[in-house]
Amino acid sequence: MTKIRTAMIGGGIGGFIGEIHRIAMRLDDRYDLVAGALSSEPTRAMESARELEIRGYATWQELLEKEQGDVDCIVIVTPNDSHAEIATAALQAGYHVVLDKPMTRTLDEALSLEIVAAQSSKIFAMTYTYTGYPMVRHMRDRILAGDIGTIRTLSIDYRQGWLAEPIERDGQKQAAWRTDPRKSGAGALGDIGSHAEQLARFTTGLAIKKVRGDVYSLVEGRQVDDHASVQFKMEHGVVGDLVCSQVCTGERNHVSVRVWGDKGSLSWSHDSCDALKFTAPDGTETITFCTTNRAPSGHPAGFIEAFANLYKDCADEIEGKDTNCIGGSDGIASMKFIDAVLRSKESQTWSDV
Amino acid sequence: MTKIRTAMIGGGIGGFIGEIHRIAMRLDDRYDLVAGALSSEPTRAMESARELEIRGYATWQELLEKEQGDVDCIVIVTPNDSHAEIATAALQAGYHVVLDKPMTRTLDEALSLEIVAAQSSKIFAMTYTYTGYPMVRHMRDRILAGDIGTIRTLSIDYRQGWLAEPIERDGQKQAAWRTDPRKSGAGALGDIGSHAEQLARFTTGLAIKKVRGDVYSLVEGRQVDDHASVQFKMEHGVVGDLVCSQVCTGERNHVSVRVWGDKGSLSWSHDSCDALKFTAPDGTETITFCTTNRAPSGHPAGFIEAFANLYKDCADEIEGKDTNCIGGSDGIASMKFIDAVLRSKESQTWSDV
Amino acid sequence: MTKIRTAMIGGGIGGFIGEIHRIAMRLDDRYDLVAGALSSEPTRAMESARELEIRGYATWQELLEKEQGDVDCIVIVTPNDSHAEIATAALQAGYHVVLDKPMTRTLDEALSLEIVAAQSSKIFAMTYTYTGYPMVRHMRDRILAGDIGTIRTLSIDYRQGWLAEPIERDGQKQAAWRTDPRKSGAGALGDIGSHAEQLARFTTGLAIKKVRGDVYSLVEGRQVDDHASVQFKMEHGVVGDLVCSQVCTGERNHVSVRVWGDKGSLSWSHDSCDALKFTAPDGTETITFCTTNRAPSGHPAGFIEAFANLYKDCADEIEGKDTNCIGGSDGIASMKFIDAVLRSKESQTWSDV
Amino acid sequence: MTKIRTAMIGGGIGGFIGEIHRIAMRLDDRYDLVAGALSSEPTRAMESARELEIRGYATWQELLEKEQGDVDCIVIVTPNDSHAEIATAALQAGYHVVLDKPMTRTLDEALSLEIVAAQSSKIFAMTYTYTGYPMVRHMRDRILAGDIGTIRTLSIDYRQGWLAEPIERDGQKQAAWRTDPRKSGAGALGDIGSHAEQLARFTTGLAIKKVRGDVYSLVEGRQVDDHASVQFKMEHGVVGDLVCSQVCTGERNHVSVRVWGDKGSLSWSHDSCDALKFTAPDGTETITFCTTNRAPSGHPAGFIEAFANLYKDCADEIEGKDTNCIGGSDGIASMKFIDAVLRSKESQTWSDV
Repeated sequence: MTKIRTAMIGGGIGGFIGEIHRIAMRLDDRYDLVAGALSSEPTRAMESARELEIRGYATWQELLEKEQGDVDCIVIVTPNDSHAEIATAALQAGYHVVLDKPMTRTLDEALSLEIVAAQSSKIFAMTYTYTGYPMVRHMRDRILAGDIGTIRTLSIDYRQGWLAEPIERDGQKQAAWRTDPRKSGAGALGDIGSHAEQLARFTTGLAIKKVRGDVYSLVEGRQVDDHASVQFKMEHGVVGDLVCSQVCTGERNHVSVRVWGDKGSLSWSHDSCDALKFTAPDGTETITFCTTNRAPSGHPAGFIEAFANLYKDCADEIEGKDTNCIGGSDGIASMKFIDAVLRSKESQTWSDV
Repeated sequence: MTKIRTAMIGGGIGGFIGEIHRIAMRLDDRYDLVAGALSSEPTRAMESARELEIRGYATWQELLEKEQGDVDCIVIVTPNDSHAEIATAALQAGYHVVLDKPMTRTLDEALSLEIVAAQSSKIFAMTYTYTGYPMVRHMRDRILAGDIGTIRTLSIDYRQGWLAEPIERDGQKQAAWRTDPRKSGAGALGDIGSHAEQLARFTTGLAIKKVRGDVYSLVEGRQVDDHASVQFKMEHGVVGDLVCSQVCTGERNHVSVRVWGDKGSLSWSHDSCDALKFTAPDGTETITFCTTNRAPSGHPAGFIEAFANLYKDCADEIEGKDTNCIGGSDGIASMKFIDAVLRSKESQTWSDV
Repeated sequence: MTKIRTAMIGGGIGGFIGEIHRIAMRLDDRYDLVAGALSSEPTRAMESARELEIRGYATWQELLEKEQGDVDCIVIVTPNDSHAEIATAALQAGYHVVLDKPMTRTLDEALSLEIVAAQSSKIFAMTYTYTGYPMVRHMRDRILAGDIGTIRTLSIDYRQGWLAEPIERDGQKQAAWRTDPRKSGAGALGDIGSHAEQLARFTTGLAIKKVRGDVYSLVEGRQVDDHASVQFKMEHGVVGDLVCSQVCTGERNHVSVRVWGDKGSLSWSHDSCDALKFTAPDGTETITFCTTNRAPSGHPAGFIEAFANLYKDCADEIEGKDTNCIGGSDGIASMKFIDAVLRSKESQTWSDV
Repeated sequence: MTKIRTAMIGGGIGGFIGEIHRIAMRLDDRYDLVAGALSSEPTRAMESARELEIRGYATWQELLEKEQGDVDCIVIVTPNDSHAEIATAALQAGYHVVLDKPMTRTLDEALSLEIVAAQSSKIFAMTYTYTGYPMVRHMRDRILAGDIGTIRTLSIDYRQGWLAEPIERDGQKQAAWRTDPRKSGAGALGDIGSHAEQLARFTTGLAIKKVRGDVYSLVEGRQVDDHASVQFKMEHGVVGDLVCSQVCTGERNHVSVRVWGDKGSLSWSHDSCDALKFTAPDGTETITFCTTNRAPSGHPAGFIEAFANLYKDCADEIEGKDTNCIGGSDGIASMKFIDAVLRSKESQTWSDV
């Protein structure tokens, strides 16, 4: 098995998400990280490459140009506002692309990028973390197999507390770009709402048709949304409620998805990510545990393994296999959702997605 | 300590809620149940009284008339449509009244009853069960004492599954009247939504100003709402989300309330009713346990003790003490909430409460 | 249904266990508490009776003599050292007897009492609380029905922390008699070890044949055991481990019993008393919830309802029905267990029970 | 930072533990796996090396000889009976050694190996997995800092179910060598009892002085112990109970350690490996969560990250830093514990460790 020669754009030393991607790539040993334009600041970019002992570039443009033939796959972990431009260029230059979510800063950018991705023969994949958890996949499989009957309603709850204070004013770098609408587009909706809505669609296999969002910047002076409650309608009359918030003080990273059908329900929570709970109509709860982790059942897996599962899928896709890999159509769906919720905020009533 | 001489209207043998009220009254031995008009069917009323070895009446009118001077307190556990008439008559006849929630079938009835209650020198109390749980009271006390700082947002989740099938068509008696709009008024909103909104107000001490409800009869052909998701705005810019549903298959009786302030959060769940969880801004969770139950901490209490706490409060009120007893103003608030949610269903946008 | 006329010995106002028994008796309204010799101190006995508005006696002897024909059943909740004498006298005087565990202070006393009980036509019942929890009974039923196959091993963990400090020296009344070997016999072994070993026998239907106890007074200067770890062998080669401790700082009242067979396991914990967990050989956990409480499933029950279930059984037994009522043979088994553990402490090896 | 050039002995493709070690080494990118003698069957050894694209050897002797100067560190993941010989040879040949636990098959072998390790200037480290969990380390730190006061008692519960059936007779390879006393030495005691006793010593910083084991082969015909309950005495009068079993049907890999002091208790469970629970004397529970994982708090870590932490420590040690790295003295302590428990089985009373 030949390793996939990979370069990373963004993700310099000291940040969080770049290192997670690198660890996830190493886990199953399918990738060989050989080059990087790891920061938009050239000095930091070069220093980060030196530390990682890979070929460094001051700009991503230079990387894309010079690594043709020496790199197969570009991993993009920059702030949202550069996603569209870099991913477009990378695809057009003939690289496979793995892009951190959300797809782009604006819906228009996403629609354009999707056209590029569709025209490319290369893989365009996005790292929606939660779809990498085996029990989220198992939940989807069981729902699609009819284990809970006809779906009626679902509830997604994604709450964090790390933006409970206006830390963007103190120069916290993650907070700074994520709360700057020019860099991020939406706030909580883009950062974690995109995960939440993806969980809704992924687990049920249904599209979201209409949304009605109650959207706030609960921290005074914040320029993007940091809290949103969304009512939504899916295909086939399925209704749902979703909350995404980054100002729920003390919440570390609470994510749960619960789906009720007419024959039972299934629920998954990030707090107990190896477990899946089925509730029968009589209230009996049956909890099954993951048996497909790298270590045997009973040895907890977690975020890094979930992330590695995404990279495993990408590697399989690159090698021509069909997987759960999330691509442009899902990215577009998230962007449309965010756009519709923000429109519903203006109209104070339902928006079509 | 003299026992309070009590009569019950509704709650015949075989039903559920009447027996709960009777057990709860016995628990602390402050009440003496001496009479009853236990059913709207005279035969069943008399038989039930015989079984309970109390004085029986075929109609509540007769009871109210004949028991003057021999009974202090009337407990009303009939379907919602008769609440207003019976409670009004009982108060006007000079009895204390304990009334199962919701207050009445319609908001208009509630407003009229409240006037009667206000003019009466007697106690008018309602049994909002969840306010009887000591840790719900403790949650309120801590929030009002500022333990979580300034409140930002809250979430109430109340889900049952017992109406997941159209059992009202099979003659299930509880289901039949609760899904008949002429008897119950609202469906899930009246039956459990009233508990949910009361929890929101009780724990925060804040009024709900605006609501936007996504309201459904998810079981086909049902005549009342059985599922509602409600976004709401409280005083001081506090925002919340609330779901009440009786068609979440398999849910036995899930009730949780979570409140986030800028200094931490508090959450309570019915599943672990003796515990209260505080989460600090750094994510540390501190769980305190009830120390005011009838048995020492570590010996679980539950629904019946919570209900008995309500009756303890009523007895204390009757004896002239100040308690957490829930009266007409809370009943009105619930009715206004339900009314506003149903209006918002029509307008598809916000309604004032 | 005629109520059972009952008198109580011990359990004066201010104590804990007497009030629990009274509440439990009231819950299902099958008992009428009419008399009491509620304390060994005559003044307190009479005052307590006055407060409870029942016929008071300064001594239990007087009560037994005078209430013949007016009382059916004697409830004994005195310290252990008077159990044998009072229960013997009450049975010989023709009363039904309900006795708080453990049976007596010494094994010899228990053996003599058992002879008296066997010769009496009246009921002799003991209140082993945990056997009153419906899911403990359900666990027994499922094990006896073969749901986990052939039993292999079990583990009982009963830990409290209330004696973590030498509070008996500060005049705490409960602590004082329970740590005085002349009043209590054994310490933790008698008080909670008796519950633990009863759970072992009750859930499996097997007798304990041999024990090896590691027994301590971990609080310096304490005159009775406050911590014991016991290895035990049951019939049919089943082996088990049991810990009972009252010095595990912070433990409120942790009780769990887990039983493994060759086809699965069942476990119950006091912390979640309405639930029973079955684990299949493949690790899948199935949690069933109590459906036989006074309120519907989803409305938590607890200690007081469990205790009331014991009194319900006693009432049924008195009326001639067969129940789960715990009688003298179980009391003897507990006493033999305690005696054997204490003997094994001396020999430092196995003792026969 | 130069990577540590590493060779592996044992751990051929298809087995479980070799792959875990390889993933753990890759996680932080400090090791470069360059060679291997991956099986005692030469053909499988060479094929496995080919698949891993590393230099392959048919025997470990050949590897040790030929890789001098090209490899810094030998990782040994063979069955227990070859640990002593290989580790001794590797150390004497001047390699660093990382050895899977238990140290050796017999105590005598361990004592000899410890002498070799002590004389070597190279690192001799053992992979006791549970000491790699950050919250186990945090538990140790807090206990040593006095957070629970003077330690009184502790309880270790380690239960698996994978040997609940005699699968060694069906050719299951893991089961075959682990239940063959010539290969493994002890059974459950060696395989998981060693983890359990290490947790007891690691978290408390205390040595175990005496043990009394109730040891069984509960599956008929099994040649090694598969279930053991052990009472033990540590320094300073601390007492404990420990169970290790591989025949608790359905247990996936339950590990918990609870330690009670006179000022509170701390407990950790593998099921919730990122959390640590402190219980105060009044019963209040405070749960803290790991903040030192590779991803932020709220993103679950697990077994593989814990294992990687061990390899991180080994790398740090090799580079001359002081870490939590577990070496020969701990290995010896485990072997002495196992030996003493097996002796106590013969004598049926206490054995000195």
